[in-house]
Amino acid sequence: MIENEIERFNKIRSHTELICSPLQTEDYVVQPIADVSPPKWHLGHTTWFFENFLLVPFLEQYQLFHPSYNYVFNSYYESVGARVLRTDRGNLSRPTTDDVYAYRAYVNEQMNLLLGRKELITDEVKFILEMGINHEQQHQELLVYDIKYILGNNPLFPAYTSETVVKEQRKAAPLLFKSIDEGVYTVGHEGEDFHFDNEKGAHKVYLNPFKISNRLITNKEYLDFMEAEGYTSFEYWLAEGWDWVKNNHVRAPEYWYKVDGEWMNYTFEGLTAIDWEAPVAHISFYEADAYARWRGYRLPTEFEWEVAAKELGSLDERNFSDGANYQLNIQEGASSHYFGNLWEWTGSAYRPYPNYETPCGALSEYNGKFMVNQQVLRGGSIATPMNHFRITYRNFFHPHLRWMLSGFRLAKSI
Amino acid sequence: MIENEIERFNKIRSHTELICSPLQTEDYVVQPIADVSPPKWHLGHTTWFFENFLLVPFLEQYQLFHPSYNYVFNSYYESVGARVLRTDRGNLSRPTTDDVYAYRAYVNEQMNLLLGRKELITDEVKFILEMGINHEQQHQELLVYDIKYILGNNPLFPAYTSETVVKEQRKAAPLLFKSIDEGVYTVGHEGEDFHFDNEKGAHKVYLNPFKISNRLITNKEYLDFMEAEGYTSFEYWLAEGWDWVKNNHVRAPEYWYKVDGEWMNYTFEGLTAIDWEAPVAHISFYEADAYARWRGYRLPTEFEWEVAAKELGSLDERNFSDGANYQLNIQEGASSHYFGNLWEWTGSAYRPYPNYETPCGALSEYNGKFMVNQQVLRGGSIATPMNHFRITYRNFFHPHLRWMLSGFRLAKSI
Amino acid sequence: MIENEIERFNKIRSHTELICSPLQTEDYVVQPIADVSPPKWHLGHTTWFFENFLLVPFLEQYQLFHPSYNYVFNSYYESVGARVLRTDRGNLSRPTTDDVYAYRAYVNEQMNLLLGRKELITDEVKFILEMGINHEQQHQELLVYDIKYILGNNPLFPAYTSETVVKEQRKAAPLLFKSIDEGVYTVGHEGEDFHFDNEKGAHKVYLNPFKISNRLITNKEYLDFMEAEGYTSFEYWLAEGWDWVKNNHVRAPEYWYKVDGEWMNYTFEGLTAIDWEAPVAHISFYEADAYARWRGYRLPTEFEWEVAAKELGSLDERNFSDGANYQLNIQEGASSHYFGNLWEWTGSAYRPYPNYETPCGALSEYNGKFMVNQQVLRGGSIATPMNHFRITYRNFFHPHLRWMLSGFRLAKSI
Amino acid sequence: MIENEIERFNKIRSHTELICSPLQTEDYVVQPIADVSPPKWHLGHTTWFFENFLLVPFLEQYQLFHPSYNYVFNSYYESVGARVLRTDRGNLSRPTTDDVYAYRAYVNEQMNLLLGRKELITDEVKFILEMGINHEQQHQELLVYDIKYILGNNPLFPAYTSETVVKEQRKAAPLLFKSIDEGVYTVGHEGEDFHFDNEKGAHKVYLNPFKISNRLITNKEYLDFMEAEGYTSFEYWLAEGWDWVKNNHVRAPEYWYKVDGEWMNYTFEGLTAIDWEAPVAHISFYEADAYARWRGYRLPTEFEWEVAAKELGSLDERNFSDGANYQLNIQEGASSHYFGNLWEWTGSAYRPYPNYETPCGALSEYNGKFMVNQQVLRGGSIATPMNHFRITYRNFFHPHLRWMLSGFRLAKSI
Repeated sequence: MIENEIERFNKIRSHTELICSPLQTEDYVVQPIADVSPPKWHLGHTTWFFENFLLVPFLEQYQLFHPSYNYVFNSYYESVGARVLRTDRGNLSRPTTDDVYAYRAYVNEQMNLLLGRKELITDEVKFILEMGINHEQQHQELLVYDIKYILGNNPLFPAYTSETVVKEQRKAAPLLFKSIDEGVYTVGHEGEDFHFDNEKGAHKVYLNPFKISNRLITNKEYLDFMEAEGYTSFEYWLAEGWDWVKNNHVRAPEYWYKVDGEWMNYTFEGLTAIDWEAPVAHISFYEADAYARWRGYRLPTEFEWEVAAKELGSLDERNFSDGANYQLNIQEGASSHYFGNLWEWTGSAYRPYPNYETPCGALSEYNGKFMVNQQVLRGGSIATPMNHFRITYRNFFHPHLRWMLSGFRLAKSI
Repeated sequence: MIENEIERFNKIRSHTELICSPLQTEDYVVQPIADVSPPKWHLGHTTWFFENFLLVPFLEQYQLFHPSYNYVFNSYYESVGARVLRTDRGNLSRPTTDDVYAYRAYVNEQMNLLLGRKELITDEVKFILEMGINHEQQHQELLVYDIKYILGNNPLFPAYTSETVVKEQRKAAPLLFKSIDEGVYTVGHEGEDFHFDNEKGAHKVYLNPFKISNRLITNKEYLDFMEAEGYTSFEYWLAEGWDWVKNNHVRAPEYWYKVDGEWMNYTFEGLTAIDWEAPVAHISFYEADAYARWRGYRLPTEFEWEVAAKELGSLDERNFSDGANYQLNIQEGASSHYFGNLWEWTGSAYRPYPNYETPCGALSEYNGKFMVNQQVLRGGSIATPMNHFRITYRNFFHPHLRWMLSGFRLAKSI
Repeated sequence: MIENEIERFNKIRSHTELICSPLQTEDYVVQPIADVSPPKWHLGHTTWFFENFLLVPFLEQYQLFHPSYNYVFNSYYESVGARVLRTDRGNLSRPTTDDVYAYRAYVNEQMNLLLGRKELITDEVKFILEMGINHEQQHQELLVYDIKYILGNNPLFPAYTSETVVKEQRKAAPLLFKSIDEGVYTVGHEGEDFHFDNEKGAHKVYLNPFKISNRLITNKEYLDFMEAEGYTSFEYWLAEGWDWVKNNHVRAPEYWYKVDGEWMNYTFEGLTAIDWEAPVAHISFYEADAYARWRGYRLPTEFEWEVAAKELGSLDERNFSDGANYQLNIQEGASSHYFGNLWEWTGSAYRPYPNYETPCGALSEYNGKFMVNQQVLRGGSIATPMNHFRITYRNFFHPHLRWMLSGFRLAKSI
Repeated sequence: MIENEIERFNKIRSHTELICSPLQTEDYVVQPIADVSPPKWHLGHTTWFFENFLLVPFLEQYQLFHPSYNYVFNSYYESVGARVLRTDRGNLSRPTTDDVYAYRAYVNEQMNLLLGRKELITDEVKFILEMGINHEQQHQELLVYDIKYILGNNPLFPAYTSETVVKEQRKAAPLLFKSIDEGVYTVGHEGEDFHFDNEKGAHKVYLNPFKISNRLITNKEYLDFMEAEGYTSFEYWLAEGWDWVKNNHVRAPEYWYKVDGEWMNYTFEGLTAIDWEAPVAHISFYEADAYARWRGYRLPTEFEWEVAAKELGSLDERNFSDGANYQLNIQEGASSHYFGNLWEWTGSAYRPYPNYETPCGALSEYNGKFMVNQQVLRGGSIATPMNHFRITYRNFFHPHLRWMLSGFRLAKSI
């Protein structure tokens, strides 16, 4: 394989470890809710992916690092055998974090061996390698979410980073709306560069006329909703959202805590004052949808979002994980339509595109089987590597979840 | 109000009671699962709708039949005050069935009074009356589902009807596919006749080319899936569907029982031999979706269904509840594209149309607040009154449910 | 069999039906909580006992009334085959109440046939008959509890009886304590008359010196505890009791409702003013135990109760179900140590006596298998037939339950 | 305070750390089931006990180690403020293990300061110190249970110790029964040396004649029960035990695993062959009770056990945690009535003795509030410090638990 591919592999692998570098050993172990996986599990699982799908089938005489790791680090691939229940990941003290790092080192070394042998690098190997790299990048983002949850729900509120970003006085841009004409548009991924099966298949859609906001809703704007009794007025909520609010006593976004009468929020710097001009984050679909209804708007569909993004969007690495200092706080006021910052909830349920086909083999379980009861999010976040992002990228979560970096913008039919 | 409207009101009200006429008093009371409501609750709730939304606001000096019935018979209208929890409906022995029938008689009489006074019949009253009638028709269909569940899950398997329909030897038509060209189509309800808010708003959609089957999948065809290990092969299933299968030990459609090695099913005639040529019924979305994947197809989207239906569909009252003998068994082999017979799962999640708006007041809670985590079904069933049905009608259920009259047809992108 | 035994059988059987005579058909069907069985289930189950344990084995050529009733009406006898889950009893609309009464009539007739044939009346038959009669009497008492729960938790609060007992102005007797000397005492049932296995085996126990109150704690006295923050002060409560209070938001005895700022309670006459001088009823063990601790006392052990009862007790049919008018309200002020009125919680866990042996066969499952995690109650209640009661009778319930007629008296070591 | 008391304090504190010395950092963190606490929680909680009950009230100008630790390390003392839910202990990665060890070192140092100041050592301080030491010893035993659960339920089955004890060929002694005459006996703790409130109050009991086995039931004997269909025959089980068996699919003692058709068990040496002559361990009350019934015996009451123990018992440090090598495997064949080895289930529910009184203050929550729904165990185990044990010691657990070192012997009335 050409050398810069090996380098890319190594770089991305080491970036995962960089994300974990501020952690204490204990932080690698816990699973406070089912949605959060222990960091050491992520480290092992991404490694298992390369071992299981590349080394075992393609590197002759490859020796497994440990015979039980397939059982421990398989996530949800029904086709690859028994596995630890997702909810039990936080019950396993072994393998230790050191064991997992040794596993990573071993698999990296073997992968370098494999990738150095040009005769073994078939198209299939290339495809799986690309998948593995993208898979690792997805877990880098999940790691950020999970680490934040582990630290931000600890009664001691430990900071992830000791660096404090000096925040100049910034104001969010005025909220403006861009109108888009009705008509037939093409959406979905086109071309040969890497993409997931779920976004594949450029195809036409008909959009009715609509307008869409130039930026995300800010903390300040969201506070208005809270102060207007938003969380106690059923009429803004989907029925299942209303049940979720009542059953979980939701009164604010995730990580907001009222301290001595003032709203604070947990960020990677610890418990800090809220930056009111920054986009509101850690919002469920139910909350985004209720806010929009309260304000007389709705969420854009994923196709409205994609069409508008082609006109409005621009990339800025400060809004992705590539930004200096690996600083995960939202740095920018919600000032213009950059991609990144936060994944944006759309009004579209996660369903397959026309002509959707699952790939063969175990990788067939990658995306398609989750296409029910989830909503699409678009746009990338400050935890997304910029080179992992695409304008056609379809992220998806259940509507009640909000431990991830989620926000939203407004739209309206016209 | 013109007389035939009063007559229509009375006729539809009495049809609800006709549906219940074969029941024993005890059958009116029970609620074996949360999704099923006791028949006496349906009788009271549909009556409460007219009392609460028409008689109380529009008939001066109207006397409530009973001060507590608002509490007992409100279903989910958050705006109308406290209510019995849905799961507690089957815990209430009082009001008795006789009380509920007296409530119906009283409200009917008062409604006739109101409707007879032309000066009170404003457009608003007309709208709510129409809603109430359609609401009652929807509950007629739910009554059929719930009665079937109550009787069909009783260890004695009592028949609902003693009449046995002579079933001539019939064969389902050959399974054929109709191709539909790509292009811009108009979907959604147009015009001034009654329709629900969720189907309102004729609008354009772009359909990619596809083909769609001429009829529903039959019991025989579904048995093939079962015998091909369909229920034990994860690769055909959505992940949440696979969990549903495993957690509930699902191995066959609802109401199928293996008796002495032979598959039987519970119908309104009792436990009977399966009519293999009839469409398979009482199927969850997960099962329909898995069957389609197994066979190399998919479900049609609701817009594909609607466009194709305009070409293929034809009405036949034998496929609706208007058919002679109120015979709820599927009488026809799945022989052509009639509407009716069974509601058909589509691949579309239940989300609002462009420009969707909720009506004002309590009726705003009718449809919109359920638009998440559910799938659209189209086509009407043998429990649907034919004059209640429209080609644009959007029914919706959670994907795991199957106590209703649900089936499916196949589609494929071309 | 001698005629007055047949008469006794018939009388007790018809008394069960008398208890149900004020019910509406719907009241026979529901099961609002798992602990409550539908009245028609009690009617069927007590009948099944005679059919299954006497008619089937001892009356040759006996024809089962219905082949499925063994499945429907078996309660918990693991040895007698499959059965409807306890929590599903309220889901069955069939057999109907009329069916069950027909079942009762048929079995009664057949039982009269059997009992009339002296040559078939072996000692074993006599024993099982006696068991069946006592079993029926136990279910008579459960019927009273369950009917009260069904009616008293209905939002309409229907009365069970239309007769209102005129309550003369009564005052509870002063609370006095009787001292009992330490020493060896004999407890447990002695002699050949009918008794249950759990009370069998007169045996010696050593009692340390104690005193015990002359009467039950009254509603007034219990209100003092409530007003002294009893329900919100953890220090009076067993840890599991405290969890029970918090999880269930318990703030008063079962059936107490605050109406317009005043405490009312549901009795068989409907929602009525509380008789403050009457014994507090529908109390869990946790509440009785907390009250006693609050007041510096404890509950008596079952042996302290039994020894004191031999000195203090006297029978009065007005405190048992034999009392005129089948009036279930507590009629007497808590004025002296009569048996009856309410079952009294003791501090003793329900465990076997020395030499305890289970009978053979299915009846072995009658008592012994419940001897863990329950507390003993003594004394009989106003729903107990007086001729069913014995001073050695051991009733038992889980400590959190209170839908039964339970109260308590105080004791203290001296 | 006299010097050897300080030395005793320090010795016992360091023994706790010795127990943890073989652990990896990750092992300190996890909580695989609610009953198991993370080892670092035990280390912190026992330290908090001394800080909260001695240093804060008695050492003037004492500085808390950390203001949040009261919240984190309080266990169940309702009177000492808010606390982390028991089930959330395993969700906390912070404070780290190193933090907790620093907390221990700080509190130890301050405790040495306090104990060195004779003028501060009142009787109350002495009492609380003694409580704290005994509390620490109880947690030493719990640590052993919890560590075993954490390692023994990990799919890698890591060993706790690398030392392997050479097990000479041993045979359990023949099972013999000792008869005890009926009569009045004195039980309960007498004298001024340390004891818990629950065992206090020597008092007379009357024992009916019985016999009791000379040793515990062995693995071999328990296997006989398993092979005689013990786990699938309802007739041996208490009803709640039978539900427990079915709901949890119990088929063997905890830590028994069938590997390639052979029973193995997890011990502190890892997954090893079963020592068939050793006492069966990790048995619930339900299993002990079922075994006894199957074999025609019953469990002894706690008083039968105590009276017999006075005749039969003898101390041997090899059966307590003082034994050489801190070897937790059962070393002795079940050969005679030594105390230690395993706590023994008795047939007695855990209820207060006559004249039982709770101590004042927070320590009032130590024992009394757990006196319901639990069974008494007697005798000490190989994880109990010998100087912590007394013949009158009452241990207690819920009847379904078995992660602790529990076994049983047989008894019978004669």
